[in-house]
Amino acid sequence: MINGQAADGISSLDRGLLYGDGVFESIGVEAGQPRFWLRHLARLAAGCERLGIPQPEGERLLEESRLVISGVNRGVLKIIVTRGCTGRGYRPTNDAIPTRIIQLHPWPDDTGTCHGSGVRVRLCRQRLGHNPALAGIKHLNRLEQVLARGEWADPGIHEGLLLDGHGCLVEGTMSNLFLIRDRVLMTPDLSRCGVAGILRTVVMELAAKVPMPLQIRALGLDDLRGADEVFLTNSLIGIWPVIAVEDRPYRRGTLTCRLQELLKDLSSDGDAWLN
Amino acid sequence: MINGQAADGISSLDRGLLYGDGVFESIGVEAGQPRFWLRHLARLAAGCERLGIPQPEGERLLEESRLVISGVNRGVLKIIVTRGCTGRGYRPTNDAIPTRIIQLHPWPDDTGTCHGSGVRVRLCRQRLGHNPALAGIKHLNRLEQVLARGEWADPGIHEGLLLDGHGCLVEGTMSNLFLIRDRVLMTPDLSRCGVAGILRTVVMELAAKVPMPLQIRALGLDDLRGADEVFLTNSLIGIWPVIAVEDRPYRRGTLTCRLQELLKDLSSDGDAWLN
Repeated sequence: MINGQAADGISSLDRGLLYGDGVFESIGVEAGQPRFWLRHLARLAAGCERLGIPQPEGERLLEESRLVISGVNRGVLKIIVTRGCTGRGYRPTNDAIPTRIIQLHPWPDDTGTCHGSGVRVRLCRQRLGHNPALAGIKHLNRLEQVLARGEWADPGIHEGLLLDGHGCLVEGTMSNLFLIRDRVLMTPDLSRCGVAGILRTVVMELAAKVPMPLQIRALGLDDLRGADEVFLTNSLIGIWPVIAVEDRPYRRGTLTCRLQELLKDLSSDGDAWLN
Repeated sequence: MINGQAADGISSLDRGLLYGDGVFESIGVEAGQPRFWLRHLARLAAGCERLGIPQPEGERLLEESRLVISGVNRGVLKIIVTRGCTGRGYRPTNDAIPTRIIQLHPWPDDTGTCHGSGVRVRLCRQRLGHNPALAGIKHLNRLEQVLARGEWADPGIHEGLLLDGHGCLVEGTMSNLFLIRDRVLMTPDLSRCGVAGILRTVVMELAAKVPMPLQIRALGLDDLRGADEVFLTNSLIGIWPVIAVEDRPYRRGTLTCRLQELLKDLSSDGDAWLN
């Protein structure tokens, strides 16, 4: 659905295509409901605000999303908002009408089994450039992730970790990274690059229920090597325990399991879907 | 024209939209001919190779471009090549068929008069992130340029200069930067960020005809302040003398004029259009 109409094509003059000038959300749909809707909507709005794109009305997005997921039990709802079409050139003029694209995709195959068995992870050669103005938001400039994900084809490797140019850990190609050491939960600071995932925030909130202290800070490869437990998060996979990064094995530890349980409890609360 | 067909819409599943996963060229058309065609084609091919996108055949692109510019004397030919549509996720699989988009746009209004009168330029707050894997090529991830160009609306300011995170000068939002000091031509090294413009290369070649020595190196604000002459280049504007960067005035110097003359001579050689 595009701008409220059943369609699957956009103008080749849309700035989403020309410059990656827009933002997106990938939202898990379970039991016919978009999970963490309000959180996704808030990040989408924050991304639009950062880029100076007029925010689409939340009510309208929800209404159109409900039409797209109508009759579907489980899937992935993707919402893209671009600045729309304007005259030539990079300048973001005020006269553009944003483009709303709402798509439904099948649920990815392998998310479920990895919760118990854990995943193997590699370190990517590709580095993330610093860009504080774009850090945190889920914008459409994703070539760094594309190049990083192109580094491996082995289906036994589920994710690759990305460092920035200073050697600081940032995130996975499609997930956020958490380390646990001495019962302290740690996740990289994302003020210079990276995407602030919805599940990342949810897990940070759940940490208070364990309880365990939380540190958001610069983390390097030494922190990774020294961690007792490592896990990855995103809106579709939930929490994936990491059982190896390159040659370094990890075990799916008790605190990771505890966070998975708390997330499951949260997920079984119907009201949480929309929050 | 899209993939050889008269059309102006693309699939909303195209990776060019989803991730900015592609490259583009903006080519000046004069006297009905695409200027510096082979150079643009070579950069497009280099960009595709860097991203692992199969290169479209040059002959086919030329044929389709000729159809699009048929009957047009002057304009801007834009060629976009994306990785096309694949399954979900960042992974660049081998099964995608690239999308070729060929558009014709009107020639920008103010390129001509600025050759003589020169342009005023500002320093942008936006910084360019380092990304050696993407540096030099003209890919579709252009949010840094969009944000930079959004910093000013004053039509008396024609361009903004961008620094990287280390305070090194890189380029303008839509142009490359040259400084002249003591008859030495200098332009920023683009191995970590920036677009290696076609006119940048042409001007570097013309420098040998002046003759004047050329330095490609790290350049900072001190170099800019200390320069005798400053100018900007791109395929559409040619060479724009800079007469001010913020409060620092410059004069349109003799060497800039000489390079403009040499470029004009080159441009009046019909064979040069296709080279």
